[in-house]
Amino acid sequence: MKNNKSLKIYNETNRKLTAYNTLIAATYFDKDTVAPKKGNRRRNEALSLMSGEVYSIETDKDYLDAIEDLRKQDRGFENDREIYLRCKALEDVLKFTKKETMAYTQAIMNSSDSWMKAREHKDYRYFEKDLHRLIEMTKERLKRIDDKRHPYDVLLDNYQEGMNREKYDAFFDRIREELIPLIREVSSRQQMVDDSFLHRYYPASKQREFAKILLKYLRFDPSWGYMGESEHPYTTSICEDDIRITTRYMEHDLSAAIFSIIHETGHAYYDHQVDRKYQNTMIKDAISMGVHESQSRFNENYIGKRRSFWVKLYPELVRIFPENLKDVSLDQFITAINKSCPSFIRTEADELTYPIHILIRYEIEKAIFDDSIDLKDLPKIWNQKYKEYLGLDVRNDYEGILQDIHWSQASFGYFPTYALGSAIGAQLIDKMEKEMDVDALLEKGKYALVQKWLKEKIQKYGALYTYDDLLKLATGKKFSPDHYIRYLKNKYRKLYKIR
Amino acid sequence: MKNNKSLKIYNETNRKLTAYNTLIAATYFDKDTVAPKKGNRRRNEALSLMSGEVYSIETDKDYLDAIEDLRKQDRGFENDREIYLRCKALEDVLKFTKKETMAYTQAIMNSSDSWMKAREHKDYRYFEKDLHRLIEMTKERLKRIDDKRHPYDVLLDNYQEGMNREKYDAFFDRIREELIPLIREVSSRQQMVDDSFLHRYYPASKQREFAKILLKYLRFDPSWGYMGESEHPYTTSICEDDIRITTRYMEHDLSAAIFSIIHETGHAYYDHQVDRKYQNTMIKDAISMGVHESQSRFNENYIGKRRSFWVKLYPELVRIFPENLKDVSLDQFITAINKSCPSFIRTEADELTYPIHILIRYEIEKAIFDDSIDLKDLPKIWNQKYKEYLGLDVRNDYEGILQDIHWSQASFGYFPTYALGSAIGAQLIDKMEKEMDVDALLEKGKYALVQKWLKEKIQKYGALYTYDDLLKLATGKKFSPDHYIRYLKNKYRKLYKIR
Repeated sequence: MKNNKSLKIYNETNRKLTAYNTLIAATYFDKDTVAPKKGNRRRNEALSLMSGEVYSIETDKDYLDAIEDLRKQDRGFENDREIYLRCKALEDVLKFTKKETMAYTQAIMNSSDSWMKAREHKDYRYFEKDLHRLIEMTKERLKRIDDKRHPYDVLLDNYQEGMNREKYDAFFDRIREELIPLIREVSSRQQMVDDSFLHRYYPASKQREFAKILLKYLRFDPSWGYMGESEHPYTTSICEDDIRITTRYMEHDLSAAIFSIIHETGHAYYDHQVDRKYQNTMIKDAISMGVHESQSRFNENYIGKRRSFWVKLYPELVRIFPENLKDVSLDQFITAINKSCPSFIRTEADELTYPIHILIRYEIEKAIFDDSIDLKDLPKIWNQKYKEYLGLDVRNDYEGILQDIHWSQASFGYFPTYALGSAIGAQLIDKMEKEMDVDALLEKGKYALVQKWLKEKIQKYGALYTYDDLLKLATGKKFSPDHYIRYLKNKYRKLYKIR
Repeated sequence: MKNNKSLKIYNETNRKLTAYNTLIAATYFDKDTVAPKKGNRRRNEALSLMSGEVYSIETDKDYLDAIEDLRKQDRGFENDREIYLRCKALEDVLKFTKKETMAYTQAIMNSSDSWMKAREHKDYRYFEKDLHRLIEMTKERLKRIDDKRHPYDVLLDNYQEGMNREKYDAFFDRIREELIPLIREVSSRQQMVDDSFLHRYYPASKQREFAKILLKYLRFDPSWGYMGESEHPYTTSICEDDIRITTRYMEHDLSAAIFSIIHETGHAYYDHQVDRKYQNTMIKDAISMGVHESQSRFNENYIGKRRSFWVKLYPELVRIFPENLKDVSLDQFITAINKSCPSFIRTEADELTYPIHILIRYEIEKAIFDDSIDLKDLPKIWNQKYKEYLGLDVRNDYEGILQDIHWSQASFGYFPTYALGSAIGAQLIDKMEKEMDVDALLEKGKYALVQKWLKEKIQKYGALYTYDDLLKLATGKKFSPDHYIRYLKNKYRKLYKIR
């Protein structure tokens, strides 16, 4: 009986938390896509207050007692896992008061709005003060969360359990050593690939037309998914059967929206394809952001940049942009979307230079939380690193430090998961290709089978298994960056006829 | 001190309620405009649960004690009014348990979804069961709310304080007696006005283009307002600085979206222009739905159907639809949009036949809550009344009983406020025209002055004054349907050259 009572309290409270999160997610999506700006002050107040309400529910004594009771019970693997995940999440929550929780939410919203304003005005100064404040607040919080670990280790672990600076250093050392020479080599052969036609004028209204076709091709079904437009592309889940993605259109970069859509759709499937029996639990969420990014980067690159993916799709693109593409063959198009060239914007970067964008952010974040840099110098440091690693002179903060939304949302320590996710993805595509003829399927338009495979191997489990176990289950092996390095080397050596 | 403590509890709780309502409104708007349908089950659960949370906050003992304490205090007119309005609203809330409240919310959402499905399939049977259930639940609730008054009187009072069947009967008797003969006369002169060009093919994408121009002309500023698309046009307020309206496009009826947009913009201004000092109070809301509809119907008809309103706007419309309108003069256009002709759809009806659509709904609702009809016969009764009053043979339920969203949302007793609002609007335009040269201003494009006048006379006060006092303050007179009847008679006699 006692057992049942705890379980009842636990389940009822989780249902309530899910309801709150549904409304909160819908309100954020609305804010990011269509909401008039003048309402932000009142909306932010409301969202901050709601973070306090969620806090009260999560820290309710009966709920915590029920969890403690369930933790002691022997209720099998799934339930143990659920309680473990819940306790881990609550551990940090309980270190702060309701007031502090609300204040942090408010600070995040203020800095998000400032970032948006800075983007509008293409002027970092609108963002700087709130960013500094958010960094200082985050540092204070990290001390409270765990004053024994390095603060950046706490952040890294937060997005990818088990990761820390030591492991990421080793990972990025490989990236640096193996890829930088190749990037230099490829850079010197720029003229070999012509992608100028991707930078002709592609009106947003026409791109929207193609986006509809692309979403249909990706089986991103309007009955369970919707795409909006926002300043920075992202994915959010209102519930398992209502997944939202966003994109943005650049009128002189045809690839930008296309690959951001394919990327976000990868995230969307992960949220959508989790087993429905985990509704209202912690298990329903992705095991980690590294694995989440493995699904999106997988879709974007290991699938979306293949010739076979475009066999049926490219004619549609030509139909919508006849002036720009009628003289461009499928092969020319494929070569162009795979061109590698150092560039300013992470989300639009090619696969080979992409991890360098992440490496740069990783180094900067490490320095921020080491207290080894003066925050005033952030844009300068950003630009120095782009010069050092990619040989680029950043012309303004809009294409420099202002490009990503993450810091404005206090998502410090998130960036490394993009590179890690790309590497996990490479390990997955190796496995997938051993199990099925991916190109043959894609050429027949059977994209759905790709997502079915990912569902069975990864997505349906949610957070049931640890990252290590999940990867072993899916690929038979522990994580290794070798797949990723090998993939990039083979691909770009072949494309640029190196050696 | 005691005084301050109650006020503090009162204000803090109201801020919290506002926050909940902000998220709830944003989620409903999202649901109505873009949300994927498969998410509805979980979203509805969340919204139902949230109605329970709001209930818990509203019925919290400390809050109720604070209200009771404030009610006894002598704190001036505004505060007395606030507490009066709050008590009136809470009185009904307190008659139900949390569970009942959540169940009713759930029933409303189920029937809204069924209505939507019935619209999709153009088949009333998808809606019928949930509608009957909602009517029965509403009847049960009405018994609990006040078993001394007639249930329909309770509903009428709910949307327009002080109204009941007796008063509405008198009002609709005038409508029936004075307008039906005129409608018959006008109907016999159909051929005098040609509006066929309004029914050419107007693609939705082009209508969207014009909608942007129209919203700009109406000063519906994107910084505080946003328009979406939904199955049935409506207005909702996320907060005073974030007002949402919706529209729908009919590709063979140019007027439909245009006048729905002008109508909803009228509502939007009311929500937007209330004095900011009433934030988080009951006073910030409109005094009644009758007055709310007076603002929207005012905008739609007394402003939007004038020649002067279109002097600067019509060339823009012609520019967007040159094939359809290049040979249509401004005067032909104005005559066409003012054509009167019995038709099936209320929202698209002309001013003269409009109140008859309302009369029909009024009679049906009265019969529903009289228990004098069998619910099974609703569509038959609907169709009979359209035949009787407007001489029309309803061809299917889609253009019959399925056309309005209101019943699916349990908004029984709302319809009469549309006719009353039209009549209030007529009284307001009489007053406005005495104070300024409306046509001269509109011809100069000074539409903003119309809304400024309405703000000063009506909107800024919110619910501070009773409906009677507000109308006297604005027009110097008590409400009288004479203005409305006179306006319609003059306008249509002139247009159709009667006598």
